[in-house]
Amino acid sequence: MKVKVGINGYGTIGKRVAWAVNKQDDMEIVGVTKTRPSYESSTAIREGLPLYAAHNEDTDNFEKAGVKVQGTLNDLLPKVDVMVDCTPGGVGEKYKILYDKVGVKSIFQGGEGHALTGVSFNALANFHEAWGASSARVVSCNTTGLVRTLFPLQQTFGIQKVFASLIRRGADPADKKGSALNAIEPSLKLPTHHGPDVKTVMHGLDIQTMAVMTPTTLMHLHCIVVDLKEKAGEKEVLDLWDSSPRVRLVSGKDGVKNTGQIMELAKDLGRPRGDMMDIAVWKDGVKMVDSTLYYYQAVHQESDVVPENIDCIRAMMKLEQDNLASIERTDRAIGLR
Amino acid sequence: MKVKVGINGYGTIGKRVAWAVNKQDDMEIVGVTKTRPSYESSTAIREGLPLYAAHNEDTDNFEKAGVKVQGTLNDLLPKVDVMVDCTPGGVGEKYKILYDKVGVKSIFQGGEGHALTGVSFNALANFHEAWGASSARVVSCNTTGLVRTLFPLQQTFGIQKVFASLIRRGADPADKKGSALNAIEPSLKLPTHHGPDVKTVMHGLDIQTMAVMTPTTLMHLHCIVVDLKEKAGEKEVLDLWDSSPRVRLVSGKDGVKNTGQIMELAKDLGRPRGDMMDIAVWKDGVKMVDSTLYYYQAVHQESDVVPENIDCIRAMMKLEQDNLASIERTDRAIGLR
Amino acid sequence: MKVKVGINGYGTIGKRVAWAVNKQDDMEIVGVTKTRPSYESSTAIREGLPLYAAHNEDTDNFEKAGVKVQGTLNDLLPKVDVMVDCTPGGVGEKYKILYDKVGVKSIFQGGEGHALTGVSFNALANFHEAWGASSARVVSCNTTGLVRTLFPLQQTFGIQKVFASLIRRGADPADKKGSALNAIEPSLKLPTHHGPDVKTVMHGLDIQTMAVMTPTTLMHLHCIVVDLKEKAGEKEVLDLWDSSPRVRLVSGKDGVKNTGQIMELAKDLGRPRGDMMDIAVWKDGVKMVDSTLYYYQAVHQESDVVPENIDCIRAMMKLEQDNLASIERTDRAIGLR
Amino acid sequence: MKVKVGINGYGTIGKRVAWAVNKQDDMEIVGVTKTRPSYESSTAIREGLPLYAAHNEDTDNFEKAGVKVQGTLNDLLPKVDVMVDCTPGGVGEKYKILYDKVGVKSIFQGGEGHALTGVSFNALANFHEAWGASSARVVSCNTTGLVRTLFPLQQTFGIQKVFASLIRRGADPADKKGSALNAIEPSLKLPTHHGPDVKTVMHGLDIQTMAVMTPTTLMHLHCIVVDLKEKAGEKEVLDLWDSSPRVRLVSGKDGVKNTGQIMELAKDLGRPRGDMMDIAVWKDGVKMVDSTLYYYQAVHQESDVVPENIDCIRAMMKLEQDNLASIERTDRAIGLR
Repeated sequence: MKVKVGINGYGTIGKRVAWAVNKQDDMEIVGVTKTRPSYESSTAIREGLPLYAAHNEDTDNFEKAGVKVQGTLNDLLPKVDVMVDCTPGGVGEKYKILYDKVGVKSIFQGGEGHALTGVSFNALANFHEAWGASSARVVSCNTTGLVRTLFPLQQTFGIQKVFASLIRRGADPADKKGSALNAIEPSLKLPTHHGPDVKTVMHGLDIQTMAVMTPTTLMHLHCIVVDLKEKAGEKEVLDLWDSSPRVRLVSGKDGVKNTGQIMELAKDLGRPRGDMMDIAVWKDGVKMVDSTLYYYQAVHQESDVVPENIDCIRAMMKLEQDNLASIERTDRAIGLR
Repeated sequence: MKVKVGINGYGTIGKRVAWAVNKQDDMEIVGVTKTRPSYESSTAIREGLPLYAAHNEDTDNFEKAGVKVQGTLNDLLPKVDVMVDCTPGGVGEKYKILYDKVGVKSIFQGGEGHALTGVSFNALANFHEAWGASSARVVSCNTTGLVRTLFPLQQTFGIQKVFASLIRRGADPADKKGSALNAIEPSLKLPTHHGPDVKTVMHGLDIQTMAVMTPTTLMHLHCIVVDLKEKAGEKEVLDLWDSSPRVRLVSGKDGVKNTGQIMELAKDLGRPRGDMMDIAVWKDGVKMVDSTLYYYQAVHQESDVVPENIDCIRAMMKLEQDNLASIERTDRAIGLR
Repeated sequence: MKVKVGINGYGTIGKRVAWAVNKQDDMEIVGVTKTRPSYESSTAIREGLPLYAAHNEDTDNFEKAGVKVQGTLNDLLPKVDVMVDCTPGGVGEKYKILYDKVGVKSIFQGGEGHALTGVSFNALANFHEAWGASSARVVSCNTTGLVRTLFPLQQTFGIQKVFASLIRRGADPADKKGSALNAIEPSLKLPTHHGPDVKTVMHGLDIQTMAVMTPTTLMHLHCIVVDLKEKAGEKEVLDLWDSSPRVRLVSGKDGVKNTGQIMELAKDLGRPRGDMMDIAVWKDGVKMVDSTLYYYQAVHQESDVVPENIDCIRAMMKLEQDNLASIERTDRAIGLR
Repeated sequence: MKVKVGINGYGTIGKRVAWAVNKQDDMEIVGVTKTRPSYESSTAIREGLPLYAAHNEDTDNFEKAGVKVQGTLNDLLPKVDVMVDCTPGGVGEKYKILYDKVGVKSIFQGGEGHALTGVSFNALANFHEAWGASSARVVSCNTTGLVRTLFPLQQTFGIQKVFASLIRRGADPADKKGSALNAIEPSLKLPTHHGPDVKTVMHGLDIQTMAVMTPTTLMHLHCIVVDLKEKAGEKEVLDLWDSSPRVRLVSGKDGVKNTGQIMELAKDLGRPRGDMMDIAVWKDGVKMVDSTLYYYQAVHQESDVVPENIDCIRAMMKLEQDNLASIERTDRAIGLR
């Protein structure tokens, strides 16, 4: 029997996770919630996903808009094994009380703090930490991106120290709110939260981060400096990433020079919604000086955590013991391999 | 037997037309050309499309990059019935000599002038003008957009006069070149070419246009004012468009307030590459004052002409006599209906 | 004795009006207010402008930040003859009650509705309507821009009908909030408020408007179509504007092709803050077809209303009977002539 | 007698240097060149600067446009002591042959390589190296920015190692060409040229750099990590910069959170053209972890090198022996102090 999954918050991340769950053979969506009617709630209905209003008081709005809902979050909860909370950052906390009350397992996104669940998750780095857990947090898009390339380096060469500058997108493509239209804005509070967040998954790593926000919508870009414990050749590093899951090497020489062109490549690859769930690393932007490695990578903020949510469900529901086996299963089902 | 189609210039438009041709049951791609190796030429190979170098001198570059080509444009030409020329604007002219020499039919895009072929094409408005033609021009994305909504109005209510302001996107999402980063730039030469271009398809229409370029990549947006011959209600007009092919009504009330949200809707609809091939008209942005109609529409510059190219092939190859039948066949095959 | 002017809201408009008032010989700033300490309140102090907290409860914040204030708005009011309200749109209404209570004259900006004062003001078009008035509203930047070029046309050739598309900037350069980063957004409610707003100054004009918001910060741009009552030559129209106050002809041929280059021109002209208080009309973007005139103009949203506020003070305080004399006096003092 | 200065290339940098030269009491502009008539050549004339055509063949264009020139570069050369070459990057090289032939001293900008002159210049770091030199290169805006804050650190605490990520603006505000409109693009060739360029001025410094280009026009922003030889407190570092020339501390707490707000601050400070010639460092974005210092700074690409050009003239013409005295003289004259 398939694991029953609910999505609280059918938005940017929620609709992608819903799609990915229904592509797997060991889990299925039994309901998604939305606070108000919109083209996204129509999408849920078109996709055949049972739609619920988040709260009782939202039901009226749906009715007025002629959108039929199956009930509210409270009606959905008893039907699910795991609830994937995709509500806006900081909101998940209050919902957790509800989930816990009904005894439903819950997964949160990177907008919540580590303390909420005590378990922060990345499929490659610490799959086992979510094993059977009643709740866990899939780390943010940026943290996921950093772990995907740093963890293999740590396993293979050892890491002394990491510094990363995060050049963040100012808003998602369909967002109305965003950064200043024509300015760069630094995250003045140092260290930024990204470094500590990586450590919730790669415990004990020495990492510092700085971050700026820029007026673009497509992807985050990281400038990363890693002092390796063991010297390595550039080719060795590239080969390592080439065989690491959810990392994709791209090349300026092939015309993939910027984040716009990575998004175009994702469309060319036939990826659903044009998503690039892999972390893109520039082959020709890698440089080793002594044992210090410099590289650039790009992170698709809307989608890279999607497969992580699937693996996290598997770990929490004890569906698969081996993380690489889960990763492969997930990725095959959604067309990443 | 299927009609054999070649694509000269496998780029933004070319790769979409290639995909759409192969979805039809009465035509197929026999080869596409590219001037240099890039991630887009890799796409062609991945899609199983025979790849040709545009010129002899390009062959070396492909070889050096380890990309196997089947020959050059000259080798491809004898194998095709119709060549769809998707080379950059103004370049098609010199290729036409080649196509004509071998006796291959040819379709050009809106970057070329009407004089090149003498036949400008829109499936809804003047399908028959391309009937059996040896060459034709599918009008530009903006002209196509204007015709899609104006032609039904003309047929049903009659048009006295049209004025349109075109707010153009500054570059395509993966383009490196584009408009100024933080400025609006008017097309000073008045009237802009858009009005006269519409008249190559809707002969005798009284239309004037102005245009500005803005720093955005997603879609063009039109502000249109139409003096109708016959007074009509707003609902009548909306119903007319709702039943017109390749027009899609959207609504700010449903959260589709800007071009970024239209592109998001296209992804939600599961459209390949996230393309919106329909012209999007805002339901709640339509106003009738006396017999003057005001409305906003958005045009996806990368894709709206794609189905028109398919219908143009059908007209030129006499595959289908009725334009509405061809439109329906095209649209069903590529998932627009 | 100079007229005593207070500024409520020392921000984008307020700081410019304060500067312009102090350049005149018949008026002076006696105080400006701010709700919280910032680099802009430091600017006020550096400029030697007496700084007041807007409300009692704001005083603490200034004290904590070590910024000395002279008291609150209530302390300032008794010292002023005219208060120029530059608070955010919609906020002026509640302050008017305060101004009226103390019997202080007040000027509002275009963010307020016409009904608030019953007098909407443009120096060229209806100076006399503010004569001795106890309160008036200087119309918005866009309305001011439209009136500056339409009024001379109406006086000289007569106007049958106007249509304008407003391509709006998404945010001011130093604003953190703004439009979507990479999208165009139409003002769906038609007619937009711009047309009716022009009529509060040019009574009875037949004008319709549409508007879109674009991701740029520098200026608004208008595409305007005017049906003139009397036929005129393009040169005649250009000569008319050339001799109209606060209109500046620019030319694509001279390298002024977009709004970024107009802003650069303003810096080259040595204009304070790089402001372009004139409405810029493109000489080579003017076209007459029969008696219909097409033209493009650009409006610097941060500054074009500044001199209008000065003239409005003169009209309300009966400092100068002739509008052209007031305009000349204002403009000479701030370096526009 | 004043030193006679010519400007070859009256554009973004050239027009600012011309202005700054004429503000000094020991030098004056005797002529500026331009390749074609435009609003910028009109600016030169309005400012009373003798205008010359760059080449003989350009003269016609000026004549046709009705712009009077005083001759060509060849006519200007004999009249000058120092020519400041502000032509586009890479172009200066061919002009140097001309300057050398007539025995005129010459200053180049950062777009040229170090090898062209053998002397790279920053007023604070190596004023003496340009002493009496026949030619020198003022380093680029980014290099100037890095040196302004790093040199004081090196003098006071010693520097072990520097890493900087440069988040570059995509184009200048009035530029028509620029970066992709909605993408981030890394400088793939590592190390980028910025690190080595700093070493042409701060010899022997251990510095590595990475760089990305973003779609914004206002300023570059640097994320800098410095391993100091000697541990220091954050306050000590801030005090050091506060007393260093051409560095300005700004603060997010005062509302200066992004590059757009720094530009607004420059306008509020009454700076000509709204230029921020100082390097802006965020007070509340400084962090010391052990002896590693993290900080953000912003660089106004259009203007920070302007005063450096003045000091370079003084060094080359032996007008002032002490660099700090020259800096103070320059800055006082142009209103930086």
